Amino acid sequence: MRIESVDLFYLSMPEVLDIGDGSQDALLVRVRAGEWTGWGECEAAPLPSIASLICPMSHSACKPVAASVVGQTLEGPEDIRRIGDLVRAESLDLLQADHTLSGIDMAMWDLWGKREGAPVWSLLGYRQAYPKLPYASMLFGDTPEETFAKARGCTFRAAKFGWGPIGKGTAEEDAAHFRAAREGLGPDKTLLVDIGTVWGEDVERAALALPALEECGAVWLEEPFVSGALASYAELARRSGKVKMAAGEGSHNIYMARQMVDHAGIGFLQIDAGRIGGLTVAKQAADYASARGVTYVNHTFTSHLALSASLAPFAGLERDEICEYPVEPKALALAITSDQLTPGADGLLRVPEGPGLGVTVAIDGVRPYLVDCEIRVRGRVLYATPEL
Amino acid sequence: MRIESVDLFYLSMPEVLDIGDGSQDALLVRVRAGEWTGWGECEAAPLPSIASLICPMSHSACKPVAASVVGQTLEGPEDIRRIGDLVRAESLDLLQADHTLSGIDMAMWDLWGKREGAPVWSLLGYRQAYPKLPYASMLFGDTPEETFAKARGCTFRAAKFGWGPIGKGTAEEDAAHFRAAREGLGPDKTLLVDIGTVWGEDVERAALALPALEECGAVWLEEPFVSGALASYAELARRSGKVKMAAGEGSHNIYMARQMVDHAGIGFLQIDAGRIGGLTVAKQAADYASARGVTYVNHTFTSHLALSASLAPFAGLERDEICEYPVEPKALALAITSDQLTPGADGLLRVPEGPGLGVTVAIDGVRPYLVDCEIRVRGRVLYATPEL
Repeated sequence: MRIESVDLFYLSMPEVLDIGDGSQDALLVRVRAGEWTGWGECEAAPLPSIASLICPMSHSACKPVAASVVGQTLEGPEDIRRIGDLVRAESLDLLQADHTLSGIDMAMWDLWGKREGAPVWSLLGYRQAYPKLPYASMLFGDTPEETFAKARGCTFRAAKFGWGPIGKGTAEEDAAHFRAAREGLGPDKTLLVDIGTVWGEDVERAALALPALEECGAVWLEEPFVSGALASYAELARRSGKVKMAAGEGSHNIYMARQMVDHAGIGFLQIDAGRIGGLTVAKQAADYASARGVTYVNHTFTSHLALSASLAPFAGLERDEICEYPVEPKALALAITSDQLTPGADGLLRVPEGPGLGVTVAIDGVRPYLVDCEIRVRGRVLYATPEL
Repeated sequence: MRIESVDLFYLSMPEVLDIGDGSQDALLVRVRAGEWTGWGECEAAPLPSIASLICPMSHSACKPVAASVVGQTLEGPEDIRRIGDLVRAESLDLLQADHTLSGIDMAMWDLWGKREGAPVWSLLGYRQAYPKLPYASMLFGDTPEETFAKARGCTFRAAKFGWGPIGKGTAEEDAAHFRAAREGLGPDKTLLVDIGTVWGEDVERAALALPALEECGAVWLEEPFVSGALASYAELARRSGKVKMAAGEGSHNIYMARQMVDHAGIGFLQIDAGRIGGLTVAKQAADYASARGVTYVNHTFTSHLALSASLAPFAGLERDEICEYPVEPKALALAITSDQLTPGADGLLRVPEGPGLGVTVAIDGVRPYLVDCEIRVRGRVLYATPEL
């Protein structure tokens, strides 16, 4: 069969706030081939991604993403990999293309899984999906008291606090938040901390946080630096004792993920399947990390479609147990699927066993969030929000 | 003064061909502050870049580029650097943003240079601009005979051949092109070869090209691999004898450039100021390479506005003499400026000494190539081609 259409749907909350909450909008992807439909989600700015799908060609290595996908033969996983390679070659100079491809790749795997009646993780090569230990992914409170209250209310066995005021004031202010989180969680739960890149590449500033993090038993320090600052990561890792470095969510191709593993001294490689080029590339990253003793973790802050997809690349890695679980999603993120992935009584999360990504996109639930867009070039409509 | 407006203009030839010629369209940037106007150019897919300038915010680290530029104070180079940092932080998750920022950064330097009555290279910290040895940057012919004819007609002291059929067939076919280029150039001219990333990360395939390249006295082998394949570059560099590796044009931030220098074993770092984040970041890359014995080279395939801008970051590096010079630009690329940079009788290219980027944008020349675009979200026009 052939890929007949690739449709992008820009979804958004009525109001988007200036906070570090990536669940306020979404870019849903629908791929159709033969009688089958697959769904995916880009973790990307919707409008630039839509433009990258349909823009006019600039030259032979700067084509719109759709040019390398629509009309292609889809008869199995090898075709999904081939189409991804084609997009990377023919849209080499279109920077946004990796983000756009990510959701398309996901949707192709979902479609093929449905056709085969098999979960995507099995198509990726795993015989078994192991349960994961989800951590509640939350923003720091504006004050240590708020952080304490959030931690206190956490019902998960692990929690990650990030963004908000952290890293922007003094090391003492940060330490007060770390201690509030630990006190709120109690002594037994896993504590993870996310700086959201605010220290740029400043190793000395980051090092000031280490004593309080170690005192609070933080398992990882996430993104003290921007993605590419490999030397800063490596230097801090040499000084961080029991606190391991976690990073990689900014990776938009396999090379960036490998470089984190090879040169940044990280203990945890965090990959967003909605950015790195989809499940195909995320699985390559998981294989690469796993072979080198680095733990793979999903990065997911949005819907349960994205959550299911993000678990597939490391579903079969028993040792890589911890997984990110968004606990403060906006209503939009929950509306995207009619089924939700919830931890069991043992606190563990099961990767869906159903065909494809194992979740159902809720067309009627999504419709109220659909943002109507139109792009015209030389008077011709190149994109108008498709029928959902 | 404050930045009052940032306008993007999508320019294109009437017909864009499926060839490796990046001069078929362009994205021109105009920045206005006080009574001053600056111009820049993104080496980027125009429509996705336009979308990245004006898209609605997704969250606190995924804002449209304009949000971090328009309204900002511009009172000197420190403000230009500060605005770039702000874009990188506030548009962290908007992948296309680095390409869009590149032209804006250029335009801010041009504007400030005009206000100060000083060339941009002097504002970047150089006391003197040294003449460069331009190489004619050309596509390989479809046949070795065509390549020979192109080389024969070359009036420059150095020439680079790239793209076209190269690397896509056998090593023998490639070697025939290399020999044709050398024969056409004669024994004394500098020969450079560009593979345009077609070998992905396949070191063994690339190694097959080395004997013919060495026999033909090629100074560099450019982009045998995709930008991120650092380990493949390093491995090939260990085996390539006198032929040095050249790469880096895909770098869209300082970290990627540094990683090429630190881990890829390259002899030449090629930076496109229209992609890496503008002149601010290109200058950082030049400083970094220079301190580590790697030669900086511009990557330029478009207009003489882009050419002048791309020379500024290494204008003062006397030792880094060679520079890329597009010799087959489409009419559009030449129409962008009313003045052209041409080599002198000695074959050397002088970096403009005039204020700003030292070239004049030809409004009337550009107008016929202007592509009318409109982007509507929720019925509101977020972008309509501005008045030129």
